[in-house]
Amino acid sequence: MAGLIGAVTLNLALDVTYDVPELVPGGSHRVAQVRQRAGGKGVNVARVAATLGHQVLALGLVGGMTGELVAEELFDAGLTALLTPIAGETRRTVAVVAASNGDATIFNETGPSVSADEWRAFLDRLPWARLSVLTCSGSVPPGIPADAYAQLAARAREHDVPAVVDAGGSALLAAAEAGAVVRANAAELREALGPDTDVAEGTRRLVALGARAAVITDGADGMVAAGPSGAWRALPVERVAGNPTGAGDACTAVVAAAIAANAEVDWPEVLRAAVAASSAAVLTPVAGDIDLAAYRRWLPAVAVNSL
Amino acid sequence: MAGLIGAVTLNLALDVTYDVPELVPGGSHRVAQVRQRAGGKGVNVARVAATLGHQVLALGLVGGMTGELVAEELFDAGLTALLTPIAGETRRTVAVVAASNGDATIFNETGPSVSADEWRAFLDRLPWARLSVLTCSGSVPPGIPADAYAQLAARAREHDVPAVVDAGGSALLAAAEAGAVVRANAAELREALGPDTDVAEGTRRLVALGARAAVITDGADGMVAAGPSGAWRALPVERVAGNPTGAGDACTAVVAAAIAANAEVDWPEVLRAAVAASSAAVLTPVAGDIDLAAYRRWLPAVAVNSL
Repeated sequence: MAGLIGAVTLNLALDVTYDVPELVPGGSHRVAQVRQRAGGKGVNVARVAATLGHQVLALGLVGGMTGELVAEELFDAGLTALLTPIAGETRRTVAVVAASNGDATIFNETGPSVSADEWRAFLDRLPWARLSVLTCSGSVPPGIPADAYAQLAARAREHDVPAVVDAGGSALLAAAEAGAVVRANAAELREALGPDTDVAEGTRRLVALGARAAVITDGADGMVAAGPSGAWRALPVERVAGNPTGAGDACTAVVAAAIAANAEVDWPEVLRAAVAASSAAVLTPVAGDIDLAAYRRWLPAVAVNSL
Repeated sequence: MAGLIGAVTLNLALDVTYDVPELVPGGSHRVAQVRQRAGGKGVNVARVAATLGHQVLALGLVGGMTGELVAEELFDAGLTALLTPIAGETRRTVAVVAASNGDATIFNETGPSVSADEWRAFLDRLPWARLSVLTCSGSVPPGIPADAYAQLAARAREHDVPAVVDAGGSALLAAAEAGAVVRANAAELREALGPDTDVAEGTRRLVALGARAAVITDGADGMVAAGPSGAWRALPVERVAGNPTGAGDACTAVVAAAIAANAEVDWPEVLRAAVAASSAAVLTPVAGDIDLAAYRRWLPAVAVNSL
């Protein structure tokens, strides 16, 4: 369990949940209870890693009163955070959850623009000497260069810190070329390599491009991992119904924790844990949470095959 | 134009508007632009009165960071406010406006509970000596007695300040008995006096109960006012399509302004202005705004008939 996981969320949010009996378009709804907590894919990574017993440091940018609420909630959740202040107001997301059918209707504010100085301040205060691994996940806010994750991966390399980058499209390719461990889902992989890309083949291509390893989540078909010494597929123990948001972040958390614990990663073993954690994340209604009992039950039963 | 209008909003809100191309239940929506401003019926009254050139003082309770945003926005809008701090967090409302059909889907948070001490503090700091009229509108938050408006009307009477109370059901009857000028819409009047109540007859009954005057808005059928010296109906100049939220608040603003200017109210004249202002409020997309040009155009053309 040695090693601190730095989990970057460039576009932190305050996730607000409204529970309503039914969503009536054009109607007026009373919201008796409001839940809110810090959100963003990197925050999910940090939560899952902390739940699994790892040391985490949430890294991001916050501004305004919504930013203060995000910082407070991270503190209340027991997540250590190093947050860079920005002039803009941190965004909110609103999820309207209808009891009638369980559907969540989501409204994502775009988020504030980040100035070049703020981005530099964020980069300059990254505590490289304390980090065993750095994860990068989620959208990049306006004002930050589109290749931010590749930049972060390159800086991580300079400091001898492995980076795990969860991205799609060209950002996925750039992170692979920068030597990061890359993570994406099958759709994002195809967005990067073409619509007809085979998942196993595409995962290997990311390694050929320079990625230290690549882990691609493939929904009910489990996950594929590839590294310099081979490629593997792991299958979920059972089909689970629930909330898939956050399942990929659970995978990132497991991968990062394995790298933080040991530079020589046992990929079949990590893939086993990642599949169990992703399935256990689907069981919980809120992204960032995982069902620990299910995770422990499934962990020894996940089948991993060499490709 | 003499006289300060105190506009009470016990359940102040931060009104957040999300513009989306289309509302897709169960879908995920990007919200490029977020508008937010202070809300609540009393705030609408204050805005309309200020727009019509009157002196206003917004009165209410605010708490937490959302409360700070409400206070800031009132300041930015040029509305003088006297706000009592509370421990709870001020509520938000979220209106999702779909460009596809213009429909607004609204989510109203319940709002914080107000303690007995906070309610007393609010009452104790009301600046009676400065007020020419007090308006009370909107919902009463948890913790404040249900007869809060009747209490306020009774206190106003002790201080020789006329009160205008916008309420429905039993709160409407209690305010009438407390000697306030009462305002409601036809549905609220029927909620108070029975489903078959004729609007003109019901308006007169409120005066018989003790109301100094009663003004009932009746949608496309205009408004009815009754006082000790008679009853009148005024009809809109034209049918207007738009956003009816805030039309009743525009009426309250006009009635309060007339009372603040002159204790001897010329009801037919006030009704004329109230109908023009309500129609002009419907023309604007946001509650609390009125189309001043339309108001001035319609004002001389409103027909008022004695009943």
